[in-house]
Amino acid sequence: MYTVQGLSIHTSIFWLLSVSGASMSQRVNDEVVARAMGEPRSGPSSGRHADRLPYIHKVGSPPKQSLFQEIKDSVKETFFSDNPLKDFKDQTGRRKFVLGLQSIFPILEWARGYKLKDFRGDFIAGLTIASLCIPQDIAYAKLANLEPQYGLYTSFVAPLVYAFMGSSRDIAIGPVAVVSLLLGTLLSDEISNYKSHEYLRLAFTATFFAGITQMALGVLRLGFLIDFLSHAAIVGFMGGAAITIALQQLKGLLGIQNFTKKTDIVSVMQSVWGSVHHGWNWQTIVIGLSFLAFLLVTKYIAKKNKKLFWVAAISPMISVIVSTFCVYITRADKHGVNIVKHIKQGVNPASASEIYFSGKYLGAGARIGVVAGMVALTEAVAIGRTFAAMKDYSLDGNKEMVAMGTMNVIGSLTSCYVATGSFSRSAVNYMAGCKTAVSNIVMSMVLLLTLLVITPLFKYTPNAVLASIIIAAVLGLIDIPAVILLWKIDKFDFIACMGAFFGVIFKSVEIGLLIAVGISFAKILLQVTRPRTAVLGKLSGTSVYRNIQQYPKASQIPGMLIIRVDSAIYFSNSNYIKERILRWLADEESLRTGSELPGIQYLIVEMSPVTDIDTSGIHALEELYKSLQKREVQLLLANPGPIVMEKLHASKLTDLIGEHNIFLSVADAVATFGPKSEAL
Amino acid sequence: MYTVQGLSIHTSIFWLLSVSGASMSQRVNDEVVARAMGEPRSGPSSGRHADRLPYIHKVGSPPKQSLFQEIKDSVKETFFSDNPLKDFKDQTGRRKFVLGLQSIFPILEWARGYKLKDFRGDFIAGLTIASLCIPQDIAYAKLANLEPQYGLYTSFVAPLVYAFMGSSRDIAIGPVAVVSLLLGTLLSDEISNYKSHEYLRLAFTATFFAGITQMALGVLRLGFLIDFLSHAAIVGFMGGAAITIALQQLKGLLGIQNFTKKTDIVSVMQSVWGSVHHGWNWQTIVIGLSFLAFLLVTKYIAKKNKKLFWVAAISPMISVIVSTFCVYITRADKHGVNIVKHIKQGVNPASASEIYFSGKYLGAGARIGVVAGMVALTEAVAIGRTFAAMKDYSLDGNKEMVAMGTMNVIGSLTSCYVATGSFSRSAVNYMAGCKTAVSNIVMSMVLLLTLLVITPLFKYTPNAVLASIIIAAVLGLIDIPAVILLWKIDKFDFIACMGAFFGVIFKSVEIGLLIAVGISFAKILLQVTRPRTAVLGKLSGTSVYRNIQQYPKASQIPGMLIIRVDSAIYFSNSNYIKERILRWLADEESLRTGSELPGIQYLIVEMSPVTDIDTSGIHALEELYKSLQKREVQLLLANPGPIVMEKLHASKLTDLIGEHNIFLSVADAVATFGPKSEAL
Repeated sequence: MYTVQGLSIHTSIFWLLSVSGASMSQRVNDEVVARAMGEPRSGPSSGRHADRLPYIHKVGSPPKQSLFQEIKDSVKETFFSDNPLKDFKDQTGRRKFVLGLQSIFPILEWARGYKLKDFRGDFIAGLTIASLCIPQDIAYAKLANLEPQYGLYTSFVAPLVYAFMGSSRDIAIGPVAVVSLLLGTLLSDEISNYKSHEYLRLAFTATFFAGITQMALGVLRLGFLIDFLSHAAIVGFMGGAAITIALQQLKGLLGIQNFTKKTDIVSVMQSVWGSVHHGWNWQTIVIGLSFLAFLLVTKYIAKKNKKLFWVAAISPMISVIVSTFCVYITRADKHGVNIVKHIKQGVNPASASEIYFSGKYLGAGARIGVVAGMVALTEAVAIGRTFAAMKDYSLDGNKEMVAMGTMNVIGSLTSCYVATGSFSRSAVNYMAGCKTAVSNIVMSMVLLLTLLVITPLFKYTPNAVLASIIIAAVLGLIDIPAVILLWKIDKFDFIACMGAFFGVIFKSVEIGLLIAVGISFAKILLQVTRPRTAVLGKLSGTSVYRNIQQYPKASQIPGMLIIRVDSAIYFSNSNYIKERILRWLADEESLRTGSELPGIQYLIVEMSPVTDIDTSGIHALEELYKSLQKREVQLLLANPGPIVMEKLHASKLTDLIGEHNIFLSVADAVATFGPKSEAL
Repeated sequence: MYTVQGLSIHTSIFWLLSVSGASMSQRVNDEVVARAMGEPRSGPSSGRHADRLPYIHKVGSPPKQSLFQEIKDSVKETFFSDNPLKDFKDQTGRRKFVLGLQSIFPILEWARGYKLKDFRGDFIAGLTIASLCIPQDIAYAKLANLEPQYGLYTSFVAPLVYAFMGSSRDIAIGPVAVVSLLLGTLLSDEISNYKSHEYLRLAFTATFFAGITQMALGVLRLGFLIDFLSHAAIVGFMGGAAITIALQQLKGLLGIQNFTKKTDIVSVMQSVWGSVHHGWNWQTIVIGLSFLAFLLVTKYIAKKNKKLFWVAAISPMISVIVSTFCVYITRADKHGVNIVKHIKQGVNPASASEIYFSGKYLGAGARIGVVAGMVALTEAVAIGRTFAAMKDYSLDGNKEMVAMGTMNVIGSLTSCYVATGSFSRSAVNYMAGCKTAVSNIVMSMVLLLTLLVITPLFKYTPNAVLASIIIAAVLGLIDIPAVILLWKIDKFDFIACMGAFFGVIFKSVEIGLLIAVGISFAKILLQVTRPRTAVLGKLSGTSVYRNIQQYPKASQIPGMLIIRVDSAIYFSNSNYIKERILRWLADEESLRTGSELPGIQYLIVEMSPVTDIDTSGIHALEELYKSLQKREVQLLLANPGPIVMEKLHASKLTDLIGEHNIFLSVADAVATFGPKSEAL
């Protein structure tokens, strides 16, 4: 495509731009001038230039839109940016109905193309994640202060619903550690006696409202709200939650009887040390530590050799089986080793009548549900997006939320608690070769069999093994490389991350969450309150103007100051921008007075990045113009965008500044008003 | 300076850019290539172009800053953007002390240059605003449910303190209608019996904390926080408050005995109509309406002829004197005309011991103080800025806040309630020819005399006259032209304005305030969540690339898609931006397939407006790169700013994308990879 000829053409432009060229063909000049006539020379000449330069392209105003169209476009871009109805266009009524059904139940679409060889992958993946999730379910239910069967119930119903409605092919659904801990903490803040029936009922209520929240976010297309929990905040929050959860497991791992109910690191460590002389149980410790070592070794093996991922995946199940057998043989439970003791057999009982739809716990349940629902969504969406990007299929965030919401609402009616996508199990699912959500159905079926047949066998499972399974699982949530990257790339992100992390471990999960959201918002507000401005200079040999801090070789134009404003001008920053520009001017003037350069006669504001301006911004520009007039400096605007142009016209500010002082580019403005030597 | 020669040079560039030029002097080419060698050709060639074009300027990375320097700069720009200590540099210790004193008490600086002819203006202005403020003070105190003398007390102490510490020359200090109403509403929410001593004590407590809030904002340099109440919100809030206040005055104007304590329009109108058959007092109505007519006529005269501003300024005083005299003569108070009755003579009593520093009202007082203090500041800063811009002197917002705060703290110790700058009185002050804050001192002295000598004379002043004075005053707060401008310029601002307006009149002052702040924040969040993106095209005859919506003549480059991202890329929008870019690509591809143009091979992201990027943004770019790779589209970046470049390097994303795929400008990228015909 390209030849050496291309090279010479390209470089010759720069050359021509850098030397004061000789005059060119008169014919072309005439044509350019004629074109420029399209732009009326409105307004009086500034008085200093008897002969003004025309410019080829007038600063465009976009076609005027009606108010309705404007609002429609804005709503569309905000809520329907993915154009969800595009497939429905130009279809028959019947076809639309089918498409509608398919959009609610994606399984109707992909099941038709489902092949037997897909099932092989899904079947193996389903079995693998089932073997991983059964011990995790029992353990996580304890984190939420619920009896073990509720974890199993959740892993039976939720994946089934998701398989019909969800569009991710790799996510593994079920209870997860962080949401279980969050739910446990929030629920026991309300009802401290977690063995009471009220506690269980509140858990179902919270699950119901978590589902409603998720559905509402999806249906109202407010899914973007979860983007406000930044990646950095999630890393910190997850890390903190992992450590908190791991510390909580010291109770089970060391066999401590009297353990604090608080989750902060100080209380937990006091509890642990306080019981060191009595209350620790050596048999428990032996079981716990040896299986923890086993789990960590298998994890390490899987990490080193990705093909052996299944070693880590089935090791929890092996641990449970082996330890249960050992305890049953040795009757270690008579020697102070805590065991699961009771786990109910049979499928989920209905729980619709258990939900508080009135009374004093309704408010608490709704509040907890909203928080847990949002956190669960954040995790699920993050996982869904990761795997969708890896396999390059697209995921409709809002549709996913509706699926998650429905899943939790149905879950709350069938004795489940909040389910979402699990990081660790989704990764195993992916590595085990899952093709579609059928792997979730397989897992669900395994859980059904488990509930019906083998739950009684878990009676002798020692709590210490469950504790070591949890510890091994949550350690994967601590992402140190990500934290290092945050430090390297963005210090503010690092602070948000650390804020969330320390908030969780020193105070509580909610406080950590609050800190994370707070810092994230503060960052956004800081951005819009103190936007950047830059002084521009010309790069030699080009007509390109760039930040002189970034390009120290860029040279400023004598008699002119060029400032770029790097943000929309809104009420929150309009005063700052005005004052900052005047300060640049004062600084430059004091510098140039020293060096005996000519004083500044023109101030060019490069508006390319100014995507929008509001009434406060218009006022600020007007005040800037007036201040500059008093200093005998002419304000020139370069490249205002479509919306800005429209508002400059609407406010009649164009008449004040002068239409002829608004340019297509900085280069045009310099060519028109700058010293002759800079015209090229 | 410019000649026709200049014209031809300028236009010839455009010509050269628009035609495929012949090859130029080899010497120059060599020089350019040699310069370009400074840029190492890192990374492998994309494979499609055997021969790559060099470019002159490498995308600059700014000099690396240490972490400390970075934080220092950021803190400085956020909190000390006005460089408050610049005068202190290189001064002796003694001089620094004097400067320090002067910066706390600006009067020490300007008093030395004060001239007798300045005093003439200040004296007249002071007398004028005193005559305006005495009746207003008595009326506004009633809005705050306080006895009339507290209004007069406030106008005696506060202006005196401000004159020593403030830096505005035109602001007139004292109680104002909106803050009085706000305080009255908030206080009576806490203590409904406003005749009780507790109510008064709570008022002083709130005033104290309002002062502390204002001082804290100034000292901590958080003054920018008040910028978050947008101009649009203030217009709506003020308009709503004005109507609410005016409606409240129907009680006094119509002589209604049983009046609702609520402030919303529905309750008030019910109260008014409910008492139409009994409870209206015709004598009161005659007094009220006739003086209201008088006040409005004088206002109209002053508006038509600016020189007669004093007619409107002294008309309230005249109304009070005439009406008081009439009532005294006719003893109309025996016929149901309500009069002031009691007004205490003498200067402010001390009130330090009245403030609640503990107990159950401490929290309420502090909360009310924070709200009232912020609203008062917003009004004062808006006024200060307006007049400073008109007379072109600069005002240090943070210093002003400290002055206001001190004034209110001292006020709370001397039986004053929250004072701030008054819109109407400041305008009169300005028009009466005030030169410095001495006019405030003159006003204060007149108030002192009033308190000492003539307060008993106000005993027979009818409440109806006070009501008409308030109505006439607050009507000026309704700014219909500003609302029309909002509608014309920015619909979102208009919505914020209407939200605040209807919130105030239909619900309450606090709700209106909350709506205003809420809508303002929503706007900011919307901006950072859904930033704009634009497809760029080349303007014929230039190397300038612009939004094809704004410049429909701009032409797209075959095989390339150029997209500009108009915002910093942060966690709140990184996903959206990534997906939006992919959607642009899909849309363009489907368009171009129809028209048999070549498919898109290069996607250029113009990053000029991207002033910052965080870790989420880096991830989004990485995902974008990978998605494009799968579609066999090469990602090219144009003009990333200094901070973005730094972060691209830190995250090693430059290695992934390829340093040679990052360009100084879109034109460079097109010249390097675009079709040959577009190279020029």
